Amino acid sequence: MPDRRPIITLTTDFGEADYYVPAVKGVIRTLSPNAEIIDITHLIPPHDIYTAAFTLLCCYRDFPKQTIHLVVVDPGVGSQRRPVLVAAGDYLFLGPDNGVFSYVYEREENCHITHLTSEHYFRQPVSNTFHGRDVFAPCAAAVAKGVEWRMLGDEIDNPVRFNVPRPVVSSSRLIRGAVIHVDRFGNIITNITRSELTEEVTTRPFKIRVGKHETARLLAHFAEAAQNELFAYFGSAGFLELAVQKQPAAKLVEARRGIEVVIES
Amino acid sequence: MPDRRPIITLTTDFGEADYYVPAVKGVIRTLSPNAEIIDITHLIPPHDIYTAAFTLLCCYRDFPKQTIHLVVVDPGVGSQRRPVLVAAGDYLFLGPDNGVFSYVYEREENCHITHLTSEHYFRQPVSNTFHGRDVFAPCAAAVAKGVEWRMLGDEIDNPVRFNVPRPVVSSSRLIRGAVIHVDRFGNIITNITRSELTEEVTTRPFKIRVGKHETARLLAHFAEAAQNELFAYFGSAGFLELAVQKQPAAKLVEARRGIEVVIES
Amino acid sequence: MPDRRPIITLTTDFGEADYYVPAVKGVIRTLSPNAEIIDITHLIPPHDIYTAAFTLLCCYRDFPKQTIHLVVVDPGVGSQRRPVLVAAGDYLFLGPDNGVFSYVYEREENCHITHLTSEHYFRQPVSNTFHGRDVFAPCAAAVAKGVEWRMLGDEIDNPVRFNVPRPVVSSSRLIRGAVIHVDRFGNIITNITRSELTEEVTTRPFKIRVGKHETARLLAHFAEAAQNELFAYFGSAGFLELAVQKQPAAKLVEARRGIEVVIES
Repeated sequence: MPDRRPIITLTTDFGEADYYVPAVKGVIRTLSPNAEIIDITHLIPPHDIYTAAFTLLCCYRDFPKQTIHLVVVDPGVGSQRRPVLVAAGDYLFLGPDNGVFSYVYEREENCHITHLTSEHYFRQPVSNTFHGRDVFAPCAAAVAKGVEWRMLGDEIDNPVRFNVPRPVVSSSRLIRGAVIHVDRFGNIITNITRSELTEEVTTRPFKIRVGKHETARLLAHFAEAAQNELFAYFGSAGFLELAVQKQPAAKLVEARRGIEVVIES
Repeated sequence: MPDRRPIITLTTDFGEADYYVPAVKGVIRTLSPNAEIIDITHLIPPHDIYTAAFTLLCCYRDFPKQTIHLVVVDPGVGSQRRPVLVAAGDYLFLGPDNGVFSYVYEREENCHITHLTSEHYFRQPVSNTFHGRDVFAPCAAAVAKGVEWRMLGDEIDNPVRFNVPRPVVSSSRLIRGAVIHVDRFGNIITNITRSELTEEVTTRPFKIRVGKHETARLLAHFAEAAQNELFAYFGSAGFLELAVQKQPAAKLVEARRGIEVVIES
Repeated sequence: MPDRRPIITLTTDFGEADYYVPAVKGVIRTLSPNAEIIDITHLIPPHDIYTAAFTLLCCYRDFPKQTIHLVVVDPGVGSQRRPVLVAAGDYLFLGPDNGVFSYVYEREENCHITHLTSEHYFRQPVSNTFHGRDVFAPCAAAVAKGVEWRMLGDEIDNPVRFNVPRPVVSSSRLIRGAVIHVDRFGNIITNITRSELTEEVTTRPFKIRVGKHETARLLAHFAEAAQNELFAYFGSAGFLELAVQKQPAAKLVEARRGIEVVIES
């Protein structure tokens, strides 16, 4: 037995009102009395693999090494899409092969991807609509109990990936990025990082434009901002964000995922 | 000590914003340091014992045997309604005697129902409005610690039950059922099962009608459906469901709980 | 090792959809494999330290002694506001020094407040926007592991406190209080307790007024109320509340936090 209890996290679009999340937890707990289950979120918008991928990206490394991250945002459940287990860096991931692990593939150097085909480990009978309960939960429990992931199926090397949205640095004076998330506070998270918005750029006068609004202020602390002022800062996940103090910036500037963010200097 | 930690699940209409859920958890944890607490949901619509009963039905057996299912949807709190403990099949249930265990009584052959009267086990003083914290949580903790449930009160044999909504098979060519739940995805769950919608029925041409909409398609997989098409399938809880791919069917066809679903062949 | 696992509760305004809550849990779990994490709520309205303080007040004592209550409602994150650890009565609290512990200071006689300055215990690098993850979570984990709280910084004696809203007893015939919370059921929680609304008052005829509505009925049980009737009762947290059976009273009488509640006799 390891020193620690194995940890299984859950990221789904099941919401919190239905029986889906507790069914998954019940199956895990039945098969693995020892695993600890921690929710990441169940409020991924229905079928939204991009938000699921982004949310996972921002916190999966905060968990202990060997944590098993279970992701069930699965619009293709019951189709030919493959269920997979990904061993990547210090973490394990289970979920549908629909692109939801695209950021993981990009960030981690060593990724071994197993197509989950060993029905021996599935909950029987396997429904056509709820692989979270019938395929992913029991396979996660098996891994938590020490089943070697190579036992669960054959390795594949062609996982589905979406193109991670990247800012385009047209010149040292023009960066074109996009909004990738809006959080509960209405803060606007972009795909621009310090790799693009370098100190070289910020030593010149520059403007950050989102929709019809713009700001020239890149702050270190929220407290430096004036009331009602739109400002930029590097957020806790490493991305450039836009906010207004104690107000929902996304609402004020009508920003939503996908909208362009332009930096000109 | 048992091999496993005892498990207590929670199903309530308390929501997730108030102090009610953590107060229940604090009381359980204070009295039973060893029990594991797992949320089923706290988003049962206020006072809605039908949704609570249905949600519990769909997942209580996914938990390990001996799990203690605590249900607090209790519009009659402080009145003469009885607090009860139900030992049914391999599971234990605690909650108000208001019908919330109707599906359990129907599904499990052996039900022993105890009227919780041993105030010795209650949190004192007992409030008139929060028996979740003052009666059910401490009694659940007592059971988790191994207190024999017969110690908690006297057995009764007249629990409150609502009539579980059942489809009416008027002839082999006409089945009248109803919507019993709409989930987060807008999928429509009916009370019709394979017992009614037999293969005999489905080998003839048939139509499933809900409100002003109908479909003749009973699919095995979501992936077989055309875009925007209303279709039927047997869902993960064993009930006939209606859906539209990646869209909220309930909204599209204006379905809500209680609406009739008719199958004609 | 103590007899019990240490407990860390979480009260935040992070919502349940973003990566903030799981990041906090991941950090705690990484640093303290043994601590149990229990959610109080993550649905405190953004930046609302009053609701956070009230919610904590109503349940912190339901948890076992030595529980560590972590509160992150932190509109001043990144400014000069101090991160603090409060040892008060039988409990420990961590959070920003912005008034969120005002009720604790008032209720507990022995409060020792430590300004968290030992960066040795922080997650590095410390972001400017997410001290829940980078300061409070690792310090809570350190305390859970037995680090003496005096090691985390220097004691201070001038914490920020807001004025706890108190009813004004103008005469034995006139009490002026206020709504301090509206719960999920629409029940209206006031700041009036049995200290003000004494039996002396209630033996005379009296009226309780909120907005344009009033009631003369102070009931012991919900079940005594007539349909559609506004009535008062002492709720489970010890405050006078107003409700309508199975209906959201706050909506019916247009009550919200801050509105005056007057009792005349």
